[in-house]
Amino acid sequence: MDISTTSSQGGEGGEGGQLERVMAAMRRRISARALPPGAKLPSIRGCAKTMGVSTSTVAEAYGRLVAEGAVQARPGSGFYVTRTPQPLALAEIGPRLERAVDPFWVSRQSLEAGRAVLKPGCGWLPADWMPEADLRRALREVARAETAVLTDYGTPLGHAPLRQLLSRRMAAQGVVAPPAQILLTESGTQAIDMLLRLLVEPGDTVLVDDPCYFNFLALLRAHRVEIVGVPMTPAGPDVEAFAAVVASHRPRLYITNAAIHNPTGAVLSPSIAHRLLALCEAGDVTVIEDDIFGDFEEEAAPRLAALDGLSRVIRIGSFSKTLTAAARCGYVAARPEWIAALVDLKIATSFGGSPVAAELTHALLRDGSYRRHLNGLRERLARTTADVRARLGVLGIRPWIEPRGGLFLWCALPDGIDAAAVARRAMAHDVVLAPGNVFSVSQSAGGMMRFNVAQCGDPRVFSVLARAMEGAAAEG
Amino acid sequence: MDISTTSSQGGEGGEGGQLERVMAAMRRRISARALPPGAKLPSIRGCAKTMGVSTSTVAEAYGRLVAEGAVQARPGSGFYVTRTPQPLALAEIGPRLERAVDPFWVSRQSLEAGRAVLKPGCGWLPADWMPEADLRRALREVARAETAVLTDYGTPLGHAPLRQLLSRRMAAQGVVAPPAQILLTESGTQAIDMLLRLLVEPGDTVLVDDPCYFNFLALLRAHRVEIVGVPMTPAGPDVEAFAAVVASHRPRLYITNAAIHNPTGAVLSPSIAHRLLALCEAGDVTVIEDDIFGDFEEEAAPRLAALDGLSRVIRIGSFSKTLTAAARCGYVAARPEWIAALVDLKIATSFGGSPVAAELTHALLRDGSYRRHLNGLRERLARTTADVRARLGVLGIRPWIEPRGGLFLWCALPDGIDAAAVARRAMAHDVVLAPGNVFSVSQSAGGMMRFNVAQCGDPRVFSVLARAMEGAAAEG
Repeated sequence: MDISTTSSQGGEGGEGGQLERVMAAMRRRISARALPPGAKLPSIRGCAKTMGVSTSTVAEAYGRLVAEGAVQARPGSGFYVTRTPQPLALAEIGPRLERAVDPFWVSRQSLEAGRAVLKPGCGWLPADWMPEADLRRALREVARAETAVLTDYGTPLGHAPLRQLLSRRMAAQGVVAPPAQILLTESGTQAIDMLLRLLVEPGDTVLVDDPCYFNFLALLRAHRVEIVGVPMTPAGPDVEAFAAVVASHRPRLYITNAAIHNPTGAVLSPSIAHRLLALCEAGDVTVIEDDIFGDFEEEAAPRLAALDGLSRVIRIGSFSKTLTAAARCGYVAARPEWIAALVDLKIATSFGGSPVAAELTHALLRDGSYRRHLNGLRERLARTTADVRARLGVLGIRPWIEPRGGLFLWCALPDGIDAAAVARRAMAHDVVLAPGNVFSVSQSAGGMMRFNVAQCGDPRVFSVLARAMEGAAAEG
Repeated sequence: MDISTTSSQGGEGGEGGQLERVMAAMRRRISARALPPGAKLPSIRGCAKTMGVSTSTVAEAYGRLVAEGAVQARPGSGFYVTRTPQPLALAEIGPRLERAVDPFWVSRQSLEAGRAVLKPGCGWLPADWMPEADLRRALREVARAETAVLTDYGTPLGHAPLRQLLSRRMAAQGVVAPPAQILLTESGTQAIDMLLRLLVEPGDTVLVDDPCYFNFLALLRAHRVEIVGVPMTPAGPDVEAFAAVVASHRPRLYITNAAIHNPTGAVLSPSIAHRLLALCEAGDVTVIEDDIFGDFEEEAAPRLAALDGLSRVIRIGSFSKTLTAAARCGYVAARPEWIAALVDLKIATSFGGSPVAAELTHALLRDGSYRRHLNGLRERLARTTADVRARLGVLGIRPWIEPRGGLFLWCALPDGIDAAAVARRAMAHDVVLAPGNVFSVSQSAGGMMRFNVAQCGDPRVFSVLARAMEGAAAEG
């Protein structure tokens, strides 16, 4: 099938290994100035003989060096070292232990972590929890799509069949969003970013849950707004405190998670949902409801977007947590006039979107395999959560609530232990943790920690955690 | 090979067609309330018999309706219509004839155009000019990548092998950019947008070429900066005018195209490049040099980024014009401290990037096929440009200069004809044109028009253009 293409493209073994060997040899000679700028490379035939490989391997290697710019081809004459400076091979930017433990800390540590690093502090599932076979199948399907799908810019709203599917899925949660009121984005994060550009000015006040997803805080700071938090209860934000902040700060916007709240695992009760929405109506507060963890629910919690009918509530979501974070596709469902304004902003700031990611997402969602994958995920998460809760209990770490689903346990450390100190110590042993205050605008969660149960499979998580807690307790 | 997967996924023919037929029949019955909310669907066996299809086809169809949310499965009981409102099937947002001919006009008309619409005004190549076979091969390669590549968020800087390759390619143009000074973005446009967020404040002055790429103007307006233009000459911006604007307006930033300028086809001369950079140094102006059309050059023009050594000049680029606009990957090369700041901004505003698009781009660039594709493209463009120039000449439309390469002819219409009027008339006949003033901050290009020669293959372009010019002349 594709074997012929693979081997000529150079994988790990056989001809691919020889190809890499020839390229590496030439690069070494160029950087050591054994072949200075302007020098002619050995002939293809000569190099093949010297290195014991075929002439076609050498031709391919030289072709790739040309593609890289290290070498130039002069037709009829041969291959020459490019007469231009080569960049220094500076070290990559690495994890920054010295950096303040701010909302970026967990993101950077997690995203930059090498394979050896354990990440119970990160917000996503390990690769082997994701639907690998379905992803490969969907990519092969996309490889057979018609040409324009593979080459052209996307339409401003994005892939119509995917928007139709999203519309039907939202209808099942009571959120009425016709496809024309849905805009595809490059991620859920990008969706929120675009909405902030549309809806707030620097200096406006934005309401968040305290604690909340730490990247909401990073994103809001990038927009230079005032952030005010409302304490969370297991059934949603504290309504009295919410009412007080609406009255005192006149916030423009409230950003929250639908369904299973990040990091707490709280789920909105119907009566709190109703009272929150009434407060937002009275105070003219726009709401962004991020449904990113919605598919982890067993039973659907109330959605503000459903109660409100997409009037002042904007629904956003993506599939980065349940399908793939490597080819992302987010969406916004909102009032038609907001969607029209977002389309102009999307054209200005990203032009055509990512049609291949949308095509891939559609291929993954449109049949029964996604539902089966979610069923399997939820079961596995439930089992894993029970196991991790028990192991944390041994260390005296107690969950704030029993979450109804999802990836996270929001936990209290034993009295007097500072979570940031624990996280710094664990990082030195290649374990990324998520200390409570990165989620807290009031910095009132210094004794809390969020654990991603799916990333706690290695027992080293608990041994490093135990030692880091001992160290932090001694320090404190 | 993948045929078995295809047919069960539902393509055009055979079982796929039957699957669509069953789904459409059920959707019709649901929306007509023949099956009202809560009603039970026919049994799988019964439906299979009635519709003359296999039970597995019906099971698949019902599974997809569940995936869409239209139907719910009750294990052991059967399938039921979901008890929730279904969205209205509102019409999609269509092209807007009535809209003002502003910088968004050409973008929206081009991006929203259906298959029947001709687009000599758009800025990209037709699908059949793109490396289709290479794209399909690269997608199949990515489908075989290791699991984490397909599921995980990208690192903050992005795919290291692609950054190494970009570093070597830039070195061949004299631009010294180590991989650690290169950040991958979701597109060239997103790269500029992030830089603007980092470098300018609302009210700052930004210098552009007049005319320039119309989306620079849209993007700068989204950032609420003052835009000042400098007239273009065939060898770059007018240096005297540039000096005057630097002195009078103290601009923070200058944005321009490297290599073949959009829309004019102008190419920087070495002496103008040197004088421009000296003026930017003296006036402390940062420069964004967008290399998006660089790969269309036969011979490399001077790069400000090369002269400057990536000190005050920032290089950005992407492969949306030469590889694919459907899985985009852009990049920024800049000073290390700016890259560090961009990483934080990238995490806040998009979190993990698009690793699959980066992987795909790397697979397409790393061997000799890209060079061969570019050689073919340049030849085909040269032939097509000559042909289109001759056809335009018949209508009295004259190119401003003979471009050295690229997609565009920047042309003067016959005296007294307003390009926006011509474009509006042509749009009514499904031809999208690019009238000069969408490129001009001073609105001084009302008699000019940009033609994308690769999109002029259909003779109807010229017949509609001729009639639209006659109409506009009579109107004027």
